[in-house]
Amino acid sequence: MKELTGGLENVKGYRFSAIECGIRYSGRLDYCLILSDVPCSAAGVFTKNMVVAAPVKLCRKIISNRISGVLINATNANACTGEEGYANANRLVSDIETKLNIPAGSVLAASTGIVGRHLPVEKMLASHGALIKGLSSDEGKKIPGAIMTTDTFPKQSAASFSTSMGEFTIAGTAKGSGMIAPNMATLLSFIITDAPVKKTDLDRIFRSVINKTLNALTIDGDMSTNDTAIILSPDKGDYLSTAADLENFEKALNFVLYKLSEMLVYDAEGATKLVKVCVKNAAHDDDAMKIARSVSQSLLVKTAFFGMDPNWGRIAVAAGYSGADIREESLSVFFGDIQLLKNGSPQEYNADALRKILAERNFTVTVDAGLGNGEAFMLTSDISYEYVKINAEYST
Amino acid sequence: MKELTGGLENVKGYRFSAIECGIRYSGRLDYCLILSDVPCSAAGVFTKNMVVAAPVKLCRKIISNRISGVLINATNANACTGEEGYANANRLVSDIETKLNIPAGSVLAASTGIVGRHLPVEKMLASHGALIKGLSSDEGKKIPGAIMTTDTFPKQSAASFSTSMGEFTIAGTAKGSGMIAPNMATLLSFIITDAPVKKTDLDRIFRSVINKTLNALTIDGDMSTNDTAIILSPDKGDYLSTAADLENFEKALNFVLYKLSEMLVYDAEGATKLVKVCVKNAAHDDDAMKIARSVSQSLLVKTAFFGMDPNWGRIAVAAGYSGADIREESLSVFFGDIQLLKNGSPQEYNADALRKILAERNFTVTVDAGLGNGEAFMLTSDISYEYVKINAEYST
Repeated sequence: MKELTGGLENVKGYRFSAIECGIRYSGRLDYCLILSDVPCSAAGVFTKNMVVAAPVKLCRKIISNRISGVLINATNANACTGEEGYANANRLVSDIETKLNIPAGSVLAASTGIVGRHLPVEKMLASHGALIKGLSSDEGKKIPGAIMTTDTFPKQSAASFSTSMGEFTIAGTAKGSGMIAPNMATLLSFIITDAPVKKTDLDRIFRSVINKTLNALTIDGDMSTNDTAIILSPDKGDYLSTAADLENFEKALNFVLYKLSEMLVYDAEGATKLVKVCVKNAAHDDDAMKIARSVSQSLLVKTAFFGMDPNWGRIAVAAGYSGADIREESLSVFFGDIQLLKNGSPQEYNADALRKILAERNFTVTVDAGLGNGEAFMLTSDISYEYVKINAEYST
Repeated sequence: MKELTGGLENVKGYRFSAIECGIRYSGRLDYCLILSDVPCSAAGVFTKNMVVAAPVKLCRKIISNRISGVLINATNANACTGEEGYANANRLVSDIETKLNIPAGSVLAASTGIVGRHLPVEKMLASHGALIKGLSSDEGKKIPGAIMTTDTFPKQSAASFSTSMGEFTIAGTAKGSGMIAPNMATLLSFIITDAPVKKTDLDRIFRSVINKTLNALTIDGDMSTNDTAIILSPDKGDYLSTAADLENFEKALNFVLYKLSEMLVYDAEGATKLVKVCVKNAAHDDDAMKIARSVSQSLLVKTAFFGMDPNWGRIAVAAGYSGADIREESLSVFFGDIQLLKNGSPQEYNADALRKILAERNFTVTVDAGLGNGEAFMLTSDISYEYVKINAEYST
């Protein structure tokens, strides 16, 4: 496997377009299309929220079809928009399908932005000529920027990998950056590959990798209505099939999605820290994940990270209420490799060395439950003044 | 029932003392004792955290004894302090019991403050003479201030009520104000009454009222190691026994604890808002509580309250991921009496009237799930710059 510079434009067999439609603001790219030259197998992971945006409903309905493209808009989530919102999403993809002369139900949709407003659907329909005209294999470079909301930088990652069928490429993009919790939250992520992977393998591998990447990060614990991760792979009837080939594909996919996950947390609203919370020796993996999640989501832990305060007490407390089996007398906490709590007792430590770790942009916190072999990790950010400012002022 | 001014000092049959021991800081009351003239029935509700402070372990062990008093310190939580911490808590109460010549296991303990530091136990033992000497029926006035940590004002409430056995009084105090979640969090609350209530009734009524008061408030979703609510009632063998008398007692207890709960949220770290989140027409009461909790704890909802932003979308989203049954097409959201979402569709509203509600210190948000008869409420605060500042700078 080899990391590639750039993103989507690395992958052969796809064209892209991104335009300024003026959906909510003028002067920014806000509407885009990813289109495969051939029909694809697709897999999708969507929000678990009971309140679901219209484009997610549409995706769920057609994700098992052969898929040719994804139509994406930023700045308006088309969520909490009732039947009219769903009808709008359908009108948009239908119009694209008709204009491209591809089957009905072959274009997925994704939206991100403000909740509870109707899309300016006439304006969007009127832009479809320009959107289609703009399609080119090089325009993939514009997609990461076009799907951003409060993100401060575009996110993309790409890799190539070898198989018995030759060299393939995989690339992805994602946008955050608030309302991000485990199970996807306001997250859109689109992955494309030129490697042909059978639908059932694609689905299984994509879900498995998502659990160790996009589902292992948290910013504010809120889970949005629009979370969508989609992967497309050309459905040409001749698939990667050996265990080794599929493993290489999975590794490359994991590389791309882990990179995107790190970038998402790095760009968390107002964040100054990227903290990997590792849990080991929990009773089992599920308990380890509960502990990692509880610590990663604790507002008191996250404000302490912002304050560069080695408040291991708050970490022990969050582990204690995680719902996992925790025994105080076997609980240990580390910042980097410095142990602050050992089997329930506070430890002496080198304050200068600890201060140095906490001043880093990236560091690791380890919780050792001392009970079994369960392991998990989560990526989290701090909560800063800036986070509050962004979210208090994001106007409805 | 009649509200009384003041607090604990209203209740006959108790003496109080509060001193400056210098446990962590000098120049503040930090150590106090509540002592009943006669042995009491006691009931206690404690943190559900698996990591539990030493005084909570001690209380759980002896709460079914006949209890004479509660020994309370602020500024040090005696949590995550291992066996030494537990031994310290025991030494302190044993010494008080010996000096007062009352049975072993008749004094409860409670601590609040920094986690992971040992109590200055010698200094505290040396102060016991002064602590006991200070006991007087009037010193109850000092307890609310002596138990504060980051609270900005002392919290007390008192009421009198009539029964077939005559007039009785009930009073309480509580301290917050961060790390407060449902299920008690860093909360200490002490309630005393001169009404004789049988241990089994006391226990049942106390738990029921706590669920509608202290367990129905949330500030930051963190649950501490020290949460303790205790009630004492003189155990003289002649108890309130009629349904009407017990109901009057319950009403007065509910009044006192609801008042304290409002004060706790009012004084939430950095809070500028006190919001009552009411849920109605959920599938059942449990679902209603899940929705109330999810909305009350959402960081995005709470920062929107701070920004005075009527972001009903975030409320609908938090309801959607609450785990309760939610159907978008029957979901409605109100700020005060202004409806913003009706059966899943955004409504036109009077922006001036809405702005007026959001500018208030106190207002109500109502979520109508449109599915059944389930009802619940929670009290919550906003999350402000000041919250982040307080919690980033609270040094370990």
